Amino acid sequence: MRQIDTATRLCAVIGNPVEHSLSPLIHNAAFEATGLNYVYVAFHVEDVAGCLTGMRALPSFRGMSVTIPHKRAVMDYLDEIEPMAQHVGSVNTITNYEGRLIGATTDGPGTLRAFADADVDLRGKRVLFVGSGGAVRAVAFAMAELAHVSEITILGRTESKVTALVDDLQSKTECEVRGRRLEQDLPSAMASHDIVIQGTSVGMHPHPGETCVPRELFRAGQVAFDMVYRPSRTRFIQDAEAAGCQTIPGVEMLINQAVLQFERWTGVPAPRNIMRDALVAELVKAVP
Amino acid sequence: MRQIDTATRLCAVIGNPVEHSLSPLIHNAAFEATGLNYVYVAFHVEDVAGCLTGMRALPSFRGMSVTIPHKRAVMDYLDEIEPMAQHVGSVNTITNYEGRLIGATTDGPGTLRAFADADVDLRGKRVLFVGSGGAVRAVAFAMAELAHVSEITILGRTESKVTALVDDLQSKTECEVRGRRLEQDLPSAMASHDIVIQGTSVGMHPHPGETCVPRELFRAGQVAFDMVYRPSRTRFIQDAEAAGCQTIPGVEMLINQAVLQFERWTGVPAPRNIMRDALVAELVKAVP
Repeated sequence: MRQIDTATRLCAVIGNPVEHSLSPLIHNAAFEATGLNYVYVAFHVEDVAGCLTGMRALPSFRGMSVTIPHKRAVMDYLDEIEPMAQHVGSVNTITNYEGRLIGATTDGPGTLRAFADADVDLRGKRVLFVGSGGAVRAVAFAMAELAHVSEITILGRTESKVTALVDDLQSKTECEVRGRRLEQDLPSAMASHDIVIQGTSVGMHPHPGETCVPRELFRAGQVAFDMVYRPSRTRFIQDAEAAGCQTIPGVEMLINQAVLQFERWTGVPAPRNIMRDALVAELVKAVP
Repeated sequence: MRQIDTATRLCAVIGNPVEHSLSPLIHNAAFEATGLNYVYVAFHVEDVAGCLTGMRALPSFRGMSVTIPHKRAVMDYLDEIEPMAQHVGSVNTITNYEGRLIGATTDGPGTLRAFADADVDLRGKRVLFVGSGGAVRAVAFAMAELAHVSEITILGRTESKVTALVDDLQSKTECEVRGRRLEQDLPSAMASHDIVIQGTSVGMHPHPGETCVPRELFRAGQVAFDMVYRPSRTRFIQDAEAAGCQTIPGVEMLINQAVLQFERWTGVPAPRNIMRDALVAELVKAVP
């Protein structure tokens, strides 16, 4: 194991709660494998302002992962926020440059990287999101701004949330975006889109049998991605596979957002396979 | 090596500079040996207020060692300061009780523990300090308040500093205390005191041949303690040994102030021998 000494840099995840975070596991595995002198802990935080004042005063507190419920609140206390995080309205990554705190989001770009890893070319594709929450928002902005997709459709149950996200995407990006009602428009949307991204919590442990998407709607040749990573093979993923779809499991989003954080903080390529192995081994333990 | 996870508590030393601190080495060795889920890092700090605001906002940031030049400055930002630290006017140890920061000093009590480890009974003894700086101040207060010594004499080169320390000890403790001039009063003081504590930086690496106390002044049966720990056997210690004195090297102060910190933060007995071994191994490397 790496030696911790006066040159060791600190990284941490903040959240509330934070006890179930897998980030310390993933990042410490990466630091250990690369021999970089960093250590990664978790902080249960209520006072976001105080926490960031502290980070600024501790220059070797190099990196912070931000999770629920602080992804929006941290934005009030940063020195700079990258454009995509500004558009999304949330920050999951803070990097401390000698007391100057820069906020970014790697949730969306990490998901694009997961598609690239799976050799899925997103250019010109029609992308369907099921759900309209914070994670969908982050990935939809990355798709709209960086991936050159031809069209994005957001399907949700709450019309006001769908409309708000669609309006925001339309006003801030060049992408063609529309909103539809999940109940009535799912079949036609499934029939006309190339990529299906499941972004609700349906199917998450302890309800692994549930899914938003009836199995008969999948078409061979579609690419199906589920943001849920517990269990690692959700009902959604299993149904898509059975229908001949290419599938990408939710762990890839979790790994790749961490990969991009690691690379920001350290400046060196992340050991992705080691991070994935550490995460998968833990998930197998947690949900047999 | 212990696993770092979301339950890991953070401890750290703050200072400026802090790059040469041995505290991460000593404390991490202790955490590892006891299997406690703590990790100890070092922070180079300029903004003391911001640093402590951050500690308060991070409840699992459990303990802080404070070193030069912040031992006095931190006192303005704590919720409570223990009486001895108030008298000494410096804090080397902060413990975070769920957002409530308590300051203490373990420099003096740690030194008393070093004497106890060496089976030196301080009760009724006449104690001579050579030097009047911050470390002497901390140890003199502990001697005066806790050790039941009969008399303390402070010898220094700068009369105003000696007088200020003597006045402070006299007004805040019950102990008999007097001040003398190092140049003229050293021989008579050496002839009349049981315990001699060297508290200047004379003899420190890279000038190991130097000493404030001519070798012929030591008397067999005296106890000689040198606060300097680089080199581990100073000229002062060697001369005292040659004269038949019992000696206590400076590493014992360093170890025992850390022992008391560890016990405050964790609530369990510190693995003193492991902490000593880790420190001594490092000092041997640093100064062959």
